[in-house]
Amino acid sequence: MPNLPPALETLLAHRSIRRFTEAPVPDEHVRLAVAAGQQASTSSNVQAYSMLRVRNQATLEKLVELTGGQTKVARCGAFFVVSGDTRRHRLLAARAGVPYRTRLEGFLVSTIDASLFAQNLCVAFESLGYGICYVGGLRNDLASIRELLRVPEGVYPLFGLCVGVPDEDPAPRPRLAPDAVLHEDLYPDDAVLLAEADAYDDRMRSWYAERGLETTWSQRIEKQFSEVHRTDVAEFYRAQGAELD
Amino acid sequence: MPNLPPALETLLAHRSIRRFTEAPVPDEHVRLAVAAGQQASTSSNVQAYSMLRVRNQATLEKLVELTGGQTKVARCGAFFVVSGDTRRHRLLAARAGVPYRTRLEGFLVSTIDASLFAQNLCVAFESLGYGICYVGGLRNDLASIRELLRVPEGVYPLFGLCVGVPDEDPAPRPRLAPDAVLHEDLYPDDAVLLAEADAYDDRMRSWYAERGLETTWSQRIEKQFSEVHRTDVAEFYRAQGAELD
Repeated sequence: MPNLPPALETLLAHRSIRRFTEAPVPDEHVRLAVAAGQQASTSSNVQAYSMLRVRNQATLEKLVELTGGQTKVARCGAFFVVSGDTRRHRLLAARAGVPYRTRLEGFLVSTIDASLFAQNLCVAFESLGYGICYVGGLRNDLASIRELLRVPEGVYPLFGLCVGVPDEDPAPRPRLAPDAVLHEDLYPDDAVLLAEADAYDDRMRSWYAERGLETTWSQRIEKQFSEVHRTDVAEFYRAQGAELD
Repeated sequence: MPNLPPALETLLAHRSIRRFTEAPVPDEHVRLAVAAGQQASTSSNVQAYSMLRVRNQATLEKLVELTGGQTKVARCGAFFVVSGDTRRHRLLAARAGVPYRTRLEGFLVSTIDASLFAQNLCVAFESLGYGICYVGGLRNDLASIRELLRVPEGVYPLFGLCVGVPDEDPAPRPRLAPDAVLHEDLYPDDAVLLAEADAYDDRMRSWYAERGLETTWSQRIEKQFSEVHRTDVAEFYRAQGAELD
């Protein structure tokens, strides 16, 4: 298609930004992006999410440490912590004197709700000219995050978000072919899934080489999942009140 | 702001569509939306998701049943099942002779990855003029979904998606105030969270009344969580190979 809708152009142009100028993100833009985030679909309109903007510089420096030395956390226009959030629901139930009950489904709804919210928010920021980066490293040490940000029961911090004016201009990272992700009527055979990985490896070899890395996507995946990461995540969310069964 | 970027307009204009014309969604548009979905952020580039387009009419009719009688599932331009997907990773590990290890973190990554993908995909479809509706009812009976769609190990169906040309024009549903979702540096006190719910109830009363419903958001939340829903979800994902601990 020669003329894509502008929103589609925004989506296709995404690349994570890891270096930002010192320009702040004005409140007006944050509120606009939050409103756009909120307009994302939400399961039965429960709106099971919230977001914390961290402004305090000492807290930001501590967050750099807790996310494994990600200096961008303290050096971006605005840093946010996105959480699945069931606290308001719990308070409403308590006030009404009715039970609040949930199983894994409740945790799942809040995780999906928060993710849809966050992705809309990111697209909104990008459409305003900012760059963004998700910070999964927030889950490296959730217990310390809870203490630092005084996260109450019913709130499940999921990831951080760096937002700001880009101070770099990286190319978007190529993804698997659309056909490797979209299937028709039935899941493909294992051999097909592997062949698609091989084809992606071929495409990505030069991409990694240009960045001084002698590796393939498959090798990186094999390494990534051969070690267990973040083993205390379930215990943390359970302590926050999530049911995982 | 008088002149919003077009992508932001698209986000703010979202409302779920539940009635579609019979116009199909051409493959060209689906592939474009999938590519836009894939460009969303993904944790360490693992791309832990996949999507099934269901075309078979008998399968669609069965899905109407399994989602609790949602006729739109069989009456939209395209119906999709979005899954967190770790199968390719598992196959790569097996081929390389290395272990594949995960805990709740792995399930969480695939759920978040799939949700970011899906939200970008929905925005892409909306920018192309289509309407969308997430179908959480897919989780009503996941065991039957697995049988119907022959979902293999390592694949976690999360929700359905109806896409098509809108045959209705509902107004966007108002959300909580942005300030009720965005906090600064510290989570607010419980009284503040409840006051924001009360303010939303006041705003929503007329919205519900116009739709013949004598209710408030708070009452709906209280009812929603006073009963446990979808109690077999954890067992299902565990049977698919997810670790939830």
